[in-house]
Amino acid sequence: MTMKAPRTRLPDARSTPRFAGVCTFGRFPLFDPADQPPDWAIYGIPFDGGVTFRPGARFGPRAVREASQFARPFHLVHKVNLIEKLSIADAGDAPVSPYHIKETLDAAAAWAGKLGDPDTTRLLAIGGDHSIAYANIRASWERRGRPAGGFGLVHFDSHLDTVDSVWGEKWGHASPFIRAIEDGLINPRHMISVGVKGPLNAASDLEFASKNGMTILMREDLEGTGPALLREFVAARPDREFYLSFDVDVVDPAFAPGTGTPSIGGISSAQALSLLQNLRGIRLAGADIVEVLPAFDVSQLTALLASQIMVEILALDALRVPD
Amino acid sequence: MTMKAPRTRLPDARSTPRFAGVCTFGRFPLFDPADQPPDWAIYGIPFDGGVTFRPGARFGPRAVREASQFARPFHLVHKVNLIEKLSIADAGDAPVSPYHIKETLDAAAAWAGKLGDPDTTRLLAIGGDHSIAYANIRASWERRGRPAGGFGLVHFDSHLDTVDSVWGEKWGHASPFIRAIEDGLINPRHMISVGVKGPLNAASDLEFASKNGMTILMREDLEGTGPALLREFVAARPDREFYLSFDVDVVDPAFAPGTGTPSIGGISSAQALSLLQNLRGIRLAGADIVEVLPAFDVSQLTALLASQIMVEILALDALRVPD
Amino acid sequence: MTMKAPRTRLPDARSTPRFAGVCTFGRFPLFDPADQPPDWAIYGIPFDGGVTFRPGARFGPRAVREASQFARPFHLVHKVNLIEKLSIADAGDAPVSPYHIKETLDAAAAWAGKLGDPDTTRLLAIGGDHSIAYANIRASWERRGRPAGGFGLVHFDSHLDTVDSVWGEKWGHASPFIRAIEDGLINPRHMISVGVKGPLNAASDLEFASKNGMTILMREDLEGTGPALLREFVAARPDREFYLSFDVDVVDPAFAPGTGTPSIGGISSAQALSLLQNLRGIRLAGADIVEVLPAFDVSQLTALLASQIMVEILALDALRVPD
Amino acid sequence: MTMKAPRTRLPDARSTPRFAGVCTFGRFPLFDPADQPPDWAIYGIPFDGGVTFRPGARFGPRAVREASQFARPFHLVHKVNLIEKLSIADAGDAPVSPYHIKETLDAAAAWAGKLGDPDTTRLLAIGGDHSIAYANIRASWERRGRPAGGFGLVHFDSHLDTVDSVWGEKWGHASPFIRAIEDGLINPRHMISVGVKGPLNAASDLEFASKNGMTILMREDLEGTGPALLREFVAARPDREFYLSFDVDVVDPAFAPGTGTPSIGGISSAQALSLLQNLRGIRLAGADIVEVLPAFDVSQLTALLASQIMVEILALDALRVPD
Amino acid sequence: MTMKAPRTRLPDARSTPRFAGVCTFGRFPLFDPADQPPDWAIYGIPFDGGVTFRPGARFGPRAVREASQFARPFHLVHKVNLIEKLSIADAGDAPVSPYHIKETLDAAAAWAGKLGDPDTTRLLAIGGDHSIAYANIRASWERRGRPAGGFGLVHFDSHLDTVDSVWGEKWGHASPFIRAIEDGLINPRHMISVGVKGPLNAASDLEFASKNGMTILMREDLEGTGPALLREFVAARPDREFYLSFDVDVVDPAFAPGTGTPSIGGISSAQALSLLQNLRGIRLAGADIVEVLPAFDVSQLTALLASQIMVEILALDALRVPD
Amino acid sequence: MTMKAPRTRLPDARSTPRFAGVCTFGRFPLFDPADQPPDWAIYGIPFDGGVTFRPGARFGPRAVREASQFARPFHLVHKVNLIEKLSIADAGDAPVSPYHIKETLDAAAAWAGKLGDPDTTRLLAIGGDHSIAYANIRASWERRGRPAGGFGLVHFDSHLDTVDSVWGEKWGHASPFIRAIEDGLINPRHMISVGVKGPLNAASDLEFASKNGMTILMREDLEGTGPALLREFVAARPDREFYLSFDVDVVDPAFAPGTGTPSIGGISSAQALSLLQNLRGIRLAGADIVEVLPAFDVSQLTALLASQIMVEILALDALRVPD
Repeated sequence: MTMKAPRTRLPDARSTPRFAGVCTFGRFPLFDPADQPPDWAIYGIPFDGGVTFRPGARFGPRAVREASQFARPFHLVHKVNLIEKLSIADAGDAPVSPYHIKETLDAAAAWAGKLGDPDTTRLLAIGGDHSIAYANIRASWERRGRPAGGFGLVHFDSHLDTVDSVWGEKWGHASPFIRAIEDGLINPRHMISVGVKGPLNAASDLEFASKNGMTILMREDLEGTGPALLREFVAARPDREFYLSFDVDVVDPAFAPGTGTPSIGGISSAQALSLLQNLRGIRLAGADIVEVLPAFDVSQLTALLASQIMVEILALDALRVPD
Repeated sequence: MTMKAPRTRLPDARSTPRFAGVCTFGRFPLFDPADQPPDWAIYGIPFDGGVTFRPGARFGPRAVREASQFARPFHLVHKVNLIEKLSIADAGDAPVSPYHIKETLDAAAAWAGKLGDPDTTRLLAIGGDHSIAYANIRASWERRGRPAGGFGLVHFDSHLDTVDSVWGEKWGHASPFIRAIEDGLINPRHMISVGVKGPLNAASDLEFASKNGMTILMREDLEGTGPALLREFVAARPDREFYLSFDVDVVDPAFAPGTGTPSIGGISSAQALSLLQNLRGIRLAGADIVEVLPAFDVSQLTALLASQIMVEILALDALRVPD
Repeated sequence: MTMKAPRTRLPDARSTPRFAGVCTFGRFPLFDPADQPPDWAIYGIPFDGGVTFRPGARFGPRAVREASQFARPFHLVHKVNLIEKLSIADAGDAPVSPYHIKETLDAAAAWAGKLGDPDTTRLLAIGGDHSIAYANIRASWERRGRPAGGFGLVHFDSHLDTVDSVWGEKWGHASPFIRAIEDGLINPRHMISVGVKGPLNAASDLEFASKNGMTILMREDLEGTGPALLREFVAARPDREFYLSFDVDVVDPAFAPGTGTPSIGGISSAQALSLLQNLRGIRLAGADIVEVLPAFDVSQLTALLASQIMVEILALDALRVPD
Repeated sequence: MTMKAPRTRLPDARSTPRFAGVCTFGRFPLFDPADQPPDWAIYGIPFDGGVTFRPGARFGPRAVREASQFARPFHLVHKVNLIEKLSIADAGDAPVSPYHIKETLDAAAAWAGKLGDPDTTRLLAIGGDHSIAYANIRASWERRGRPAGGFGLVHFDSHLDTVDSVWGEKWGHASPFIRAIEDGLINPRHMISVGVKGPLNAASDLEFASKNGMTILMREDLEGTGPALLREFVAARPDREFYLSFDVDVVDPAFAPGTGTPSIGGISSAQALSLLQNLRGIRLAGADIVEVLPAFDVSQLTALLASQIMVEILALDALRVPD
Repeated sequence: MTMKAPRTRLPDARSTPRFAGVCTFGRFPLFDPADQPPDWAIYGIPFDGGVTFRPGARFGPRAVREASQFARPFHLVHKVNLIEKLSIADAGDAPVSPYHIKETLDAAAAWAGKLGDPDTTRLLAIGGDHSIAYANIRASWERRGRPAGGFGLVHFDSHLDTVDSVWGEKWGHASPFIRAIEDGLINPRHMISVGVKGPLNAASDLEFASKNGMTILMREDLEGTGPALLREFVAARPDREFYLSFDVDVVDPAFAPGTGTPSIGGISSAQALSLLQNLRGIRLAGADIVEVLPAFDVSQLTALLASQIMVEILALDALRVPD
Repeated sequence: MTMKAPRTRLPDARSTPRFAGVCTFGRFPLFDPADQPPDWAIYGIPFDGGVTFRPGARFGPRAVREASQFARPFHLVHKVNLIEKLSIADAGDAPVSPYHIKETLDAAAAWAGKLGDPDTTRLLAIGGDHSIAYANIRASWERRGRPAGGFGLVHFDSHLDTVDSVWGEKWGHASPFIRAIEDGLINPRHMISVGVKGPLNAASDLEFASKNGMTILMREDLEGTGPALLREFVAARPDREFYLSFDVDVVDPAFAPGTGTPSIGGISSAQALSLLQNLRGIRLAGADIVEVLPAFDVSQLTALLASQIMVEILALDALRVPD
């Protein structure tokens, strides 16, 4: 069995072990505008000014990069090698304005908008709190030519994140999707929220979702028919581009203690990986992983999980590249 | 959809975020004898003098209260809002005598016996080690008019807690139920222990349970028919009042590391919540949550779980309140 | 030796150990507007929206209160008993607007302005990040009748906190004193910053202080003549009211790891206590303790220190009360 | 019900609680060459010079012994009491040469080779990193008279550990089984690796296994038919002696954070125990538990798990002893 | 320079590194009644039933033994080699009765009373909370022929530990010395408490000490003349036998976070070692080190300190052995 | 006051906060062979194969870089701005051979030997364990034209590190200086070891130092005349080039818990900084900081200290650059 020339080059492990060298995601090369534009640009948005409980996710991108030194490229379930199929680069971190949410989202979206080739380079953002999803969705949507129907959205989360505003703020981490829907970036009829669970503040928290035709897979559904429903949801929309947003708090805090609004009774890491593997066939327009809060992490559990989630996302895309 | 006037008032979240203000369970009001007696009085028994291994559960009530700031009132599975259906107050902590188990149990039972209206106010105690269950069972039983047949008991635990004595002490945390049964507070024919697992010190550890007709759902049963058996056990006794005692060590220490006698191979948090939701219809005479040991907790996992267990217990009761 | 009737009543330790009961600072009573106004109202401002590095000090007030259960009232060096000389109450937490600094400062100052009797009740605030000092200084100054010359300031800190703005924000935690000076609340000629140390971003960071006549005791001075200079600074201004602001990062992070911008090479806890004891005779118009960040604390070190600093501050005031 | 005279004597718990006394595995007696040779000699190989990522497993044996004070002898599923059926002793730690892998393996194998009676005493080794498995396999194989066909192997691990060499080293923790197979200690046709998961460095990582007829139960298989396949694999080889090697990283890092190469998405502790219980009937020639790294452990989770795994292994053997 | 034949034999470091083998204090041999009685018997009293705040010191003896693997025998300041001058053995742990203080003290004293030769073997106890000091003092005093005048006492502590009773209990960790004085084991005129600091509950806390002629070196004295005063106190009593009791909370919690009643503003570890070195010439009748609470320790700081304190104590005795 | 054009450019803090962007030491630029050679090349040697107790310092370079995001360039005591006076770059990590000490030292020395301009670029290495000092000394010495007399050495450490061999290995972390002296890289007559403390294994551990004319400042000396002696030692050798090696274990583990062989009773961080500031005037040929072990660090204390030590070292050099 011979390995093809990789499209993404890793350091030579014979002299540079995984604990050595400049720390980029997955030991992938730093993004260089002079190079051939990569298929995926990974970048951080180290911002947590949108949180409602524990802050600290600004340190998420660094923690995920450090944990990602463990990442390996050959996906054993999909039988696909990321670095053979995709060129991937780490573009560092977007500029942020730590005291101001909207300014940060605008600056990050503008900065990300210029990475690589808008036609061929997709964006994988590392949060930061969930507010940053709006920025990456916007940048991705603008790069794809502002598709009128908006993207579909596969959204893993314990929470719906469609609260209109909190403490008078419309751009916080409870609101990215209501804003993205209002702005036409996401089409709620093609949006599925996976792993949502209670308790909620009130029954009315579900109203926006039901009025707008969002699909919700409750956490309780995921032991039963949920995985099949998710697979069918995507399969029923073969031509649609999806954005994928993964909030680590969908996973039980035993697996992801390092997060800001932990929600007891979540799925396991193994279930999360399996659900993502279920998305085989999805057309990805962009993605994010958010709400990694290193100060509450233990033994890198959450950062390692986030890193593996990113590998799963990239593997889904690699599957679509012909041999 | 409009929310009814709540029977329990929470602080205004617009000015008092969840990390602010006096720390009561669930941000519920402090118990005030001058107020209308609440449906439930929550209180702590900060005592760990009954332990056989790691001490420190005396700090449990504070840790659970702090974690409970996260708690939200609308239960998404049961579709019930705690604060619409129930009036709940935090009565602070019972007096304790840290060096003496029996004196503590007597003092706590006497103190709790006077909270609110014995006819309408039920008691939800936060331990402390499992020895304190006896005090809350006794206070609850006396308030209910000392029912001759004793309460039924739904008991979640890795251990049976029916050891006659340890190091010559009959009131320690391995013995609350043998004492409660001896004193007629609990009827062993209506007692079910859920999640029991080994290893044990000897085969004879099971003798008391089998001789007295206790029902045991082994931990291994809970992947299969156990949940249905539990549901049927309660459903078969529709008129009986049950006391519910929840030892966090029934959950695997990955989910509840902060406990004194961790038992490897336990159920997940999600399974624990599901088992409790199974009890729909139960008539609760009182309840406790015990063995939260903050010094061994990480990132509040155990305290958050305990807080959610308490929400589940209260939701079971709220379900019985007509609209 | 008999103890006088205390002016502040503590719970009966015979039945309520230090790990029990509602958690107020020092186990002092909750502030009740219906009571005689206390000499000191202690309150929290759970806000960390002003930080430039690690956030999380919003959880500071709760952590300090929990650690303060250890606090004892008889000061062994000053030979004064806090609760004999002073009436002290815990007023809970000020309202905050987590996304907005200036709004939070305004709301907290307005709320604190109404606590107790403006003429006789002084304010001791627990942060939160250092930005909150402005709010407590303003409330204290307004209550004292807006003294035209401003307060003196004794400021313990590794940093000067006189940066004009950071990321375009003028109210962050690097700027409280430049704002307080601009607004006439603090007179820089009567301001002394104790424990300042480098490195700095540039030599120009010292310009505001030197232009405005602030006195700086560098950290290096504190092993030598610094303590005497501090004592003389205060003694030379016997009629002036001082505000005291204590940033825990003045202490080395070995003693105070739980803080947002730790500064290596600080003084020890013992030195900090000794410096405060040096201020004997000071007339205090108000005070704060800031920058306790529980997520980085270990074994409550920082919170215990903050609690003891508050005892020292109150003891300085108790000394001025005649027997 | 009476308990038989135990074959292994434990300290009297009436005076020596589980947190007291000399710390041997399970509170079993220290191995004494003058005594009757035990059925099992437990010993540590405190060596981590074979790791490729996080070192520190040299402290594993001590941590497992400390956690094992919790261990109890009566297995509730198998209904067997270890100390009635087996005589077990803790032989302390093998000599190691911390800078040299091969020298350590040789020294440990030679030392272990002399413990007890080669015909009747089997060896249960506590690592240390996985490289030490080779030493215990060799010692076990030589004691059993160097069976020509080699042992069968039941191998729990996230990784195959059949890498030929890493950084030019052929004896590291990624290579014990390739060496054991080359030397005829293990027969790959009778070897099953349970819980293997990706990602891998490349597709070629699987080549050795497939060429040599090893059986692999992928982690994904373990939710479905895997447990039955494992049971059948062993049942189909009733006369073969098996060595059992358990790398704690087969379990998800939420359950076993204290390990050197954590692999996200593993099985739960409960699944691990259940899989081992599945092996009922196996003839054990020796065993090990490896890769416990205390510096990354939290609240002893990993060490407690390792201790329970060892109880499960011993219980499998106790089952074969007639009453 | 040649080393003498050691009186205490350590394991051969060439094959048994410090992280290997059975864990005894300092890697000293296990006490064997059949051997020549040692000069010092080290033993643990794993009991924390006497605490008033954080429990958990029952795990202290194990933690100190583990940290002591670092201990080395040649004292660089005193220029004395422990193992050349003294024979030392680790006798394991005394029996305890976890629920009962007085019974534990009696059992431990009786057990320790039989270790080695009462005339030549002295006792060094590892706590456990400070209540256990009484047991070791009593055993030491009885072994020395119950000297009528009692021992002198050098007592390092933040607290006086002469409270008559707490919660009605006369044998708790706040009371060992009042009991030892009442029973004539300690002569308060020859007792010096070093490092005492406030705050106290009330001024009256000092009364017992002043009435009974105890000498107190306040923590504040230790920067100045305190060390000389301590040296002179001992030098002025050349024929008196002293017991030495060291509570780790005398050291600032930055150096000893793992303790039950931390006291802010303590001395540094370096000061503690220096104070002990000051005692050169003291005649030791016995000693203890208490209040190590591993659950609050970080990176073994407190256990390592305790281990080094024990080396200092033994070195003081070794100095008195002629070459 | 205007700032000169910096010789080292930092990221614009207005858009890239300290928690953002690619993580290089001090946010200094990555070394680029195409650029003007820097005055100092900082690089890591992520190797811990030379340890005798706790491993894990291989993760030191990453941890120090992360903590160094706090570093600021203007030194307040020396009144010098690093980035005005010096050009500094982060060259990443040297190649290592994790299983082999000598091969690693050779590879690292060869790799570092080629960084920048041998005549003008000096090397500041981040360990890794102390064995790596040899590699950086050799590379520095070869670049400086192999000066026949060897370098002087200022060595901060609790240990002498002149053990001939451990477990048969001559290149471990206890031996770098005996090897450097043997090879003529260091002249022991111009070598001073600062902060050495006991206990030692035996009196003979001091023999090599005394026979070869090394100067030792014991830890106890550092409270008194030690700092002056250190200053004079360097001042007496104005023309000699010194190498500076800083083992973080010279500092007490309360300040530097994250290290492999912690030594109780060390100096404080403040003393360490002051001692380094004492070296004003020294001519530096190279330097290292070693033995940072992140797995035992808490709240980044040790990594922050290491980062500040590096700033102090660079500031000493910046002082020699004329305005």
